[in-house]
Amino acid sequence: MTLRIAFQGEIGAFSEEAARILFPEHEPRPYPSFEAVFDAVHHGQADRGVVPIENSLHGSVHSNYDLLEEHELRITAEVSLRIRHSLLALPDVRLNQIRKVKSHPQALGQCRHFLREQLPDVEIVPAYDTAGAARDVADAADPSVAAIASSRAGGEYGLATIAEGIESNHQNYTRFLALAAPGTMPDPPSGTHSSWKTSIVYAMKNNVPGALFKSLAVFALRDIDLYKIESRPLVGSPGEYLFYLDLGGSEQQEGVTNAVGHLKEIAAYVKVLGSYPSGGVVD
Amino acid sequence: MTLRIAFQGEIGAFSEEAARILFPEHEPRPYPSFEAVFDAVHHGQADRGVVPIENSLHGSVHSNYDLLEEHELRITAEVSLRIRHSLLALPDVRLNQIRKVKSHPQALGQCRHFLREQLPDVEIVPAYDTAGAARDVADAADPSVAAIASSRAGGEYGLATIAEGIESNHQNYTRFLALAAPGTMPDPPSGTHSSWKTSIVYAMKNNVPGALFKSLAVFALRDIDLYKIESRPLVGSPGEYLFYLDLGGSEQQEGVTNAVGHLKEIAAYVKVLGSYPSGGVVD
Repeated sequence: MTLRIAFQGEIGAFSEEAARILFPEHEPRPYPSFEAVFDAVHHGQADRGVVPIENSLHGSVHSNYDLLEEHELRITAEVSLRIRHSLLALPDVRLNQIRKVKSHPQALGQCRHFLREQLPDVEIVPAYDTAGAARDVADAADPSVAAIASSRAGGEYGLATIAEGIESNHQNYTRFLALAAPGTMPDPPSGTHSSWKTSIVYAMKNNVPGALFKSLAVFALRDIDLYKIESRPLVGSPGEYLFYLDLGGSEQQEGVTNAVGHLKEIAAYVKVLGSYPSGGVVD
Repeated sequence: MTLRIAFQGEIGAFSEEAARILFPEHEPRPYPSFEAVFDAVHHGQADRGVVPIENSLHGSVHSNYDLLEEHELRITAEVSLRIRHSLLALPDVRLNQIRKVKSHPQALGQCRHFLREQLPDVEIVPAYDTAGAARDVADAADPSVAAIASSRAGGEYGLATIAEGIESNHQNYTRFLALAAPGTMPDPPSGTHSSWKTSIVYAMKNNVPGALFKSLAVFALRDIDLYKIESRPLVGSPGEYLFYLDLGGSEQQEGVTNAVGHLKEIAAYVKVLGSYPSGGVVD
């Protein structure tokens, strides 16, 4: 079955690349916002949503954690993707013909060393997203304008890659989650696979010293690995926090079920976001 | 003494607003990147740098944590600022005259409900930053173009506020840190003040289950409050993490000194980023 995959952005966006890696045979469904992606999955207009949840340079996407809390979707898969930027232009354009470079401000910032050294005199033009900038360059058919986006976005819109990996910090990875309606089975991992992850969000009853420590004891006492822990202050409620936790194992395993049950005894609020095969890193 | 405060962005940027709150009598020094802000403080071209470290919707700014690790600067103060967006235009312009709205893509996204309802037919133009968009609108002197930025940026460039608080999610706060050269005393808090914070970053020797739990025990056993905990996977070293921790108390207090000493016994790496008065929230 060809799954319909919702993502935010244009064809050629990094989210679509993550969708393609997780679901090679998918039917892409671009949406203008993350909220629209969640709604599409919720209303059955898409079988999965693929959204970024954290980036190695820019941290967790709290707004997508908020949407996970507001909706009853489940995480079914994950993948981490290296964010590799390319300079893209019309075929046969040379570096010295370029007068203008378009991209999302974050991508422009990540490539500012390349731009300063290789193209010190070009005009920098901000764009709404990277893939959209590539599409605009193709549409305008002007050899003096280039875009910064993935090489794949360039291929999508018929542009050539003039330079690849032009970001200053190559340690730039985004972790994407696949989301589905409740009751959907986790997506089968590609290749050999042996480990599972479970993501939960919780809040403690009171924020006396040691509340977090106590909550982690339910996992430590059962030798359960933690892959992520993040506190998030609740705006407007000083001293109250949400905790985001990724732990080793599946809800199907007794140790995890017991630990989550134990956490519910001592926490004010616990929500399991899903159990899914722990995903690879795609360079 | 009037302190020279380095920040990233244009005059009227949210970072400059944070600088003004922390240092009312400062001399602003705008820089094009966070790296340049750190370098300016390191080389004594500025007395403080003011940089964002986390946002309630967009998470921690890991790239600024990286710069904190690479440089020997110390945190001397903090403040959390509500990110309130306004629609700005030339004086006497009415909403129905506007044909184009410019801003940073993140701000445009945060205000998309307002734009869809109030200005459904305008052209959306991405900009490099919010304050820069306000300056561009003032420079162009075209009554059909508006910017989304803070009202303060509007005032800075002679624009009028047509609508205020137009972001969909009002729970949008950014926490800023003030940074200084090593040996600088913490900045005196404004108003009555009684509590201190200490920020540290550390890594554990091995990532066996329970390593994080053990590291938190050094604080829990001494009844030290935790205000922030965040794990960050080290790209390229699977299973290894950095932990970012904000705790209650100052390095001058024996309990904190003892706890940090205890942590050093069991951790692979510990760096204290600074002790500073815990800052307020500015709405």
